[in-house]
Amino acid sequence: MTTTVITNIGQLVTNDPEADDLLGIVVDAALVIERSTVAWVGRAADAPAADAQIDAGGRAVVPGFVDSHSHLVFAGDRSAEFAARMAGESYAAGGIRTTVAATRAATDEQLTSHVARLVDEMRRQGTTTVEIKSGYGLTVHDEARSLAVARQFTEETTYLGAHVVPEGATPEEYVALVTGPMLDACAPHARWVDAFCETGAFDADQSRAVLEAGTAAGLRGRLHANQLGPGPGVRLACELGLTAVDHCTYLAEEDIAALAESGTIATLLPGVEFSTRQPYPDGRRLVEAGVRVALATDCNPGSCFTSSIPLCVALAVREMGMTPAEALHAVTAGGAAALAREDVGILVPGGRADLLLLDAPSYVHLAYRPGVPLVAATWVGGRPV
Amino acid sequence: MTTTVITNIGQLVTNDPEADDLLGIVVDAALVIERSTVAWVGRAADAPAADAQIDAGGRAVVPGFVDSHSHLVFAGDRSAEFAARMAGESYAAGGIRTTVAATRAATDEQLTSHVARLVDEMRRQGTTTVEIKSGYGLTVHDEARSLAVARQFTEETTYLGAHVVPEGATPEEYVALVTGPMLDACAPHARWVDAFCETGAFDADQSRAVLEAGTAAGLRGRLHANQLGPGPGVRLACELGLTAVDHCTYLAEEDIAALAESGTIATLLPGVEFSTRQPYPDGRRLVEAGVRVALATDCNPGSCFTSSIPLCVALAVREMGMTPAEALHAVTAGGAAALAREDVGILVPGGRADLLLLDAPSYVHLAYRPGVPLVAATWVGGRPV
Repeated sequence: MTTTVITNIGQLVTNDPEADDLLGIVVDAALVIERSTVAWVGRAADAPAADAQIDAGGRAVVPGFVDSHSHLVFAGDRSAEFAARMAGESYAAGGIRTTVAATRAATDEQLTSHVARLVDEMRRQGTTTVEIKSGYGLTVHDEARSLAVARQFTEETTYLGAHVVPEGATPEEYVALVTGPMLDACAPHARWVDAFCETGAFDADQSRAVLEAGTAAGLRGRLHANQLGPGPGVRLACELGLTAVDHCTYLAEEDIAALAESGTIATLLPGVEFSTRQPYPDGRRLVEAGVRVALATDCNPGSCFTSSIPLCVALAVREMGMTPAEALHAVTAGGAAALAREDVGILVPGGRADLLLLDAPSYVHLAYRPGVPLVAATWVGGRPV
Repeated sequence: MTTTVITNIGQLVTNDPEADDLLGIVVDAALVIERSTVAWVGRAADAPAADAQIDAGGRAVVPGFVDSHSHLVFAGDRSAEFAARMAGESYAAGGIRTTVAATRAATDEQLTSHVARLVDEMRRQGTTTVEIKSGYGLTVHDEARSLAVARQFTEETTYLGAHVVPEGATPEEYVALVTGPMLDACAPHARWVDAFCETGAFDADQSRAVLEAGTAAGLRGRLHANQLGPGPGVRLACELGLTAVDHCTYLAEEDIAALAESGTIATLLPGVEFSTRQPYPDGRRLVEAGVRVALATDCNPGSCFTSSIPLCVALAVREMGMTPAEALHAVTAGGAAALAREDVGILVPGGRADLLLLDAPSYVHLAYRPGVPLVAATWVGGRPV
């Protein structure tokens, strides 16, 4: 059996929940990989022998990033809409329909090749687990094939038929489709069910119907909520005990109290606020209220076309009052919690060996060096990629 | 003689000053490289034959980025200071002295290897011309060796002995050194002379003395000014007819008028404001006043440790009201103007063949896709790197 020891790690972030510090940092560390898992972590001086040895050169090693929110299955380009928005036009959920038309017109091969390109791009930036949603098909056929495409790249697929009401349907008709024949076609390809609970998309009752039907079909629930303004979505997510509720840009005191009480993860998506010039969610306030926070990209062609988790870390620190440690935790252990995964986002014995060697002595450089590609090497399931 | 044609370029940015649009865009374009220069640009259908052909696959080609402001010759790490600043401490020029101590203690080999790493990192992000300053030595020996190190990587070296007054010297004593023996030792290694005109660094009279001595020794002048508050630096730069004045964060109406009148380039460094949480300079106001604008990184260990020109583009669009076209122009033709270079920042026949193939159909993606590494291929002096 082959084992590999990575030694001379200047700073190892384990996210060990039993450590005294948030990140479970070990300095002058080593980590042993055995097959697809982490077999040992500790001080380099104490490391067991292994078949192969890699010298980290004093650099930092962190868990692979877990991006718990993306919309990679789409076709078409909306850079002109972006440029217009930067020149003063505001973002509206209806722009989603532009992408729907292009996605329906694309072949399976085109969609697959596009997702492959984006997943590879994410991988190069350190993302080792990615959630991918449907939501640009909005027909039974196009939602199901979007999920089938996504499933080729990840187990973390999310059925988002309830992204927006397509042209030609009433909300009532469409919710009936989403909770009926579309759900039947999509559930075999999905782990999660999601809805966009927002003015211009679905209201609380419609969102509740979608989530309840999805969970009855064996899917786990998550929700888009409180992105463009205050609303009932966050409280609905907490009431239903969903794993995560995403965006959380506009929160009332009672929303924050509900999040802290329920344990539902608040997934913040600062790339959206960067790309739509909206105010950022108040990460500091959530952390101090005891809310569990994740950070993710929301990579999509409309409101945020970044695939960069390091950018999300830098924005969380610059704009949202989070410390570099809190931000790193939110893109690793936080993302894992938002996907109800215990095997990733953490580097402890028995965990999956998804890890990054940074071209930096400390994880702080992810915020200190914004925009700079700092991932020097990546292992996924114990294999260098 | 070998020629190469890059064909099937979906969008070619030439920055041709004779074009009707700011970026001199040619669609469905081709570009011919002959030795180190651009030999031909135009519509792909009209391209001449060449010895080798590269298919751009419909993607965009832009001039290589010109980063006209960096401080790469240093040693030591200030990530802890960064984290403290993000937790609420404010940036002060005095932090420079921390880096001075580490830089003096480093060997020439250590400094050279560190600069090489950063220049390579910049290259991977599309920077094909970089200016590098001294300024962390502050002794005759350490300033001269800093410039000798920098000169191994670029012709665009800047003598910044007047970065801050070192401990143990009075300002008067130190300015005498900077304008006397230190200048004599540094001028052979430098093209430019610079000073940090700011409260806590050098006042207008001291800055003037440094610039006048430097230009008398055959160097060209540039200046750091109006970064941390209003001040006389921008007007001094315009009065002296300097090529560029850098930062320009705090400007009065008369500063803007002086810039528009003099033709001195205003070099904006938004990575600094990102990393110090200061307000951004008003790029839109400068553009509309007819000021010529460049954007650069200011890559340095204290106030801004990004090496990413694409991040500067994204910030200029998100935070400074510049259009994607204005921002791209400012990191190419603008940077070239700030270095008084006519051979780079432009892709027209006779210009240097420094160019980037983007993994995107349009340059707009540099702002539309913040944080994402989009440089698919780079040519420097006609050679793929």
